[in-house]
Amino acid sequence: MKATGIVVEYNPFHNGHLYHLNQSRSKTNSDVIIAVMSGNFLQRGEPALVDKWTRAKMAVSAGVDLVIELPYAFATAQASDFAKGAIFLLDSLKCEFFCFGSEEGSLDSFHHTYQLLSTNKADYNTAISTFIKQGISYPKALNEAYKLISANSTVPLVDLSKPNNILGYHYIEAAYKLNASIKPETIHRVIANYHDEANPSETIASATGIRKVLFGEMNLTSIQSFLPSTSITELQTWHTAYKAFGSWEGFWPSLRLIILRHTKAQLANYAEITEGIENAIWDAAMKSESFQSFMMQIKSKRFTWTRIQRMLTHIYNCFTWNELEQMDLPTYIRPLAMSKNGQAYLNSLKKDLQLPLISRVAAHKENDMLMLDLKASNLYYLGLQSTNAHEMIGNDYRNAPIIQ
Amino acid sequence: MKATGIVVEYNPFHNGHLYHLNQSRSKTNSDVIIAVMSGNFLQRGEPALVDKWTRAKMAVSAGVDLVIELPYAFATAQASDFAKGAIFLLDSLKCEFFCFGSEEGSLDSFHHTYQLLSTNKADYNTAISTFIKQGISYPKALNEAYKLISANSTVPLVDLSKPNNILGYHYIEAAYKLNASIKPETIHRVIANYHDEANPSETIASATGIRKVLFGEMNLTSIQSFLPSTSITELQTWHTAYKAFGSWEGFWPSLRLIILRHTKAQLANYAEITEGIENAIWDAAMKSESFQSFMMQIKSKRFTWTRIQRMLTHIYNCFTWNELEQMDLPTYIRPLAMSKNGQAYLNSLKKDLQLPLISRVAAHKENDMLMLDLKASNLYYLGLQSTNAHEMIGNDYRNAPIIQ
Repeated sequence: MKATGIVVEYNPFHNGHLYHLNQSRSKTNSDVIIAVMSGNFLQRGEPALVDKWTRAKMAVSAGVDLVIELPYAFATAQASDFAKGAIFLLDSLKCEFFCFGSEEGSLDSFHHTYQLLSTNKADYNTAISTFIKQGISYPKALNEAYKLISANSTVPLVDLSKPNNILGYHYIEAAYKLNASIKPETIHRVIANYHDEANPSETIASATGIRKVLFGEMNLTSIQSFLPSTSITELQTWHTAYKAFGSWEGFWPSLRLIILRHTKAQLANYAEITEGIENAIWDAAMKSESFQSFMMQIKSKRFTWTRIQRMLTHIYNCFTWNELEQMDLPTYIRPLAMSKNGQAYLNSLKKDLQLPLISRVAAHKENDMLMLDLKASNLYYLGLQSTNAHEMIGNDYRNAPIIQ
Repeated sequence: MKATGIVVEYNPFHNGHLYHLNQSRSKTNSDVIIAVMSGNFLQRGEPALVDKWTRAKMAVSAGVDLVIELPYAFATAQASDFAKGAIFLLDSLKCEFFCFGSEEGSLDSFHHTYQLLSTNKADYNTAISTFIKQGISYPKALNEAYKLISANSTVPLVDLSKPNNILGYHYIEAAYKLNASIKPETIHRVIANYHDEANPSETIASATGIRKVLFGEMNLTSIQSFLPSTSITELQTWHTAYKAFGSWEGFWPSLRLIILRHTKAQLANYAEITEGIENAIWDAAMKSESFQSFMMQIKSKRFTWTRIQRMLTHIYNCFTWNELEQMDLPTYIRPLAMSKNGQAYLNSLKKDLQLPLISRVAAHKENDMLMLDLKASNLYYLGLQSTNAHEMIGNDYRNAPIIQ
């Protein structure tokens, strides 16, 4: 059986994801599609709309064969570590390809870009430092440095100002650095741009656009043209049970409590907190009755919204710099859901896996990386401020992978 | 002007407190009564019914001249440190007497008991250790050891199985150990015992009994015979604004969140957590939808309910063993409320005070002990789960002492 891997968040699973899934299968002619998916907290540093079990069910309902959890330590990390964790897991699962959507759409440009940047690594890093010292954000500094390095290039290169190109670049870089057997493939992302507003006359919109409509109208009808009906059903069932979708705005009283029980100096111990931003975080938490107003007070040219949200995710989940430094590569494979087909693939592979395959967590309580996933899961349910959701606390200990 | 000090929590201020207040004034023939009062978290290790500002107003309305905050580090400590902090502050405020209610009612017995225990200190401590090794709680071990030491005494001694006698003993011990100028006085506590149920045909009931009725019936009419009308008015105003009284049951979602964002090992860093009880705390938090069911799972012969609650208070407020060890004596005098008479006394004293008198905290942000009080205040308002109460966050920075 031939497998292809994809890296996903499915927040929520929509028609664009369905297109990516089907294209990945046909372009690589694979029997099995394996999705490495973030847990309850995402790479943009925020709680997911619905929990990982529900998102994994959406994925399998739509045709994914196997959903593997990307551990918290990678799922909430900056792009390079996110990509490293994901590609390492897909390679461990013996996928022949990983297939990502990109604005670029051509693999050659990605390879050229990787060669250019690794050949000129020292110059590139010097340029990045110079730009950062001018007070701009890290992504902007990367981009300016890249422009400088690539000015005289004669080969086609990737436009690294596009969000999916950036992620794609990091996947490819990770595959090179890990010396992985897995090979890249990319699909041209044509319709919705990452941050676009959802256009009601279309059937494809970005997850960001869809969430914006959902939180604006608080009504699933308003987004149903963008999602497979299986996703709508899962979202409906979730909302009936818990009366809330995950968002920092909803989590704000809990996040605020956690920020304010620390001194500023203590906040600086949490992962990704740098350059004194703990002072701004604490001061803004004192004054802000909403997450929106909190963020407006701390965002700056130097820190992107996403980067600040990742810091907040780590504060919320009690994840420190010390812990971050101990997390190098995923240490286990944890399936969340699978089809019969995915199950057969996993069974065929079992003997050859280098990492432990975790179906029940009870035997793995000494694994700090896994315990962090379980903790983040519990804190997600508590943050929802729904008594019903509290019953989900500990479900990560009880749940076996969903097979459908 | 002659001042007498009392040590109080006023949770809430009731007719028994009024009796104690009036007796303290008349017995010592004082012009000024100064109350050292716990802040938003109390010695039994729980959030107060209403915040410290409201309780300070109740006190002054009922005749107290000056209410001083007992810093968190002492207010939530075991009896000996609680007493040390309170007596030190009253001595610093040049009170001639401190006056406490006791089941005993006679000072001589307290002095005899102090002499007996300090003379036989080594034997007493050995006996305590022996009893603790048998698996009983610390207060029970104290009591058994005391029985042993006092068996052959020929002088009248205090019965240290009674809660107000225990506190009184610690006040006297503190005054001796601090070499304080302040002198003790005691009033015989005749009517309600500390933990008694409130009897509706009486006008005096214990605060514990009153809170039990209040949380049972959620109705101020049911307790109004036990409280001065000024207290009822304050409670009414508070409840109209915030729709909640402080209690661990109400704080439970927040406390549970805070417990579960730690590993068991991390919990052990918090003050008073010993002997592996962090494991039981974490496991019970995983399973418990209510504070009551949580406590039923962790209470044991070794740990009293109150001691566990103090641990939880420290977890909630992020107060560690390290911090506890740095808190020796109060480092400031912070008035919360006063009468004109209290104000005149304070003015007459200003030049002679050894400790800084803090009316506005802005100039004292480097004082860790004070910052802890402010933090606990903020976390109290957040724990109430009332959006209106969130507006009180930071009020400790803004509020000047109430003068009425």
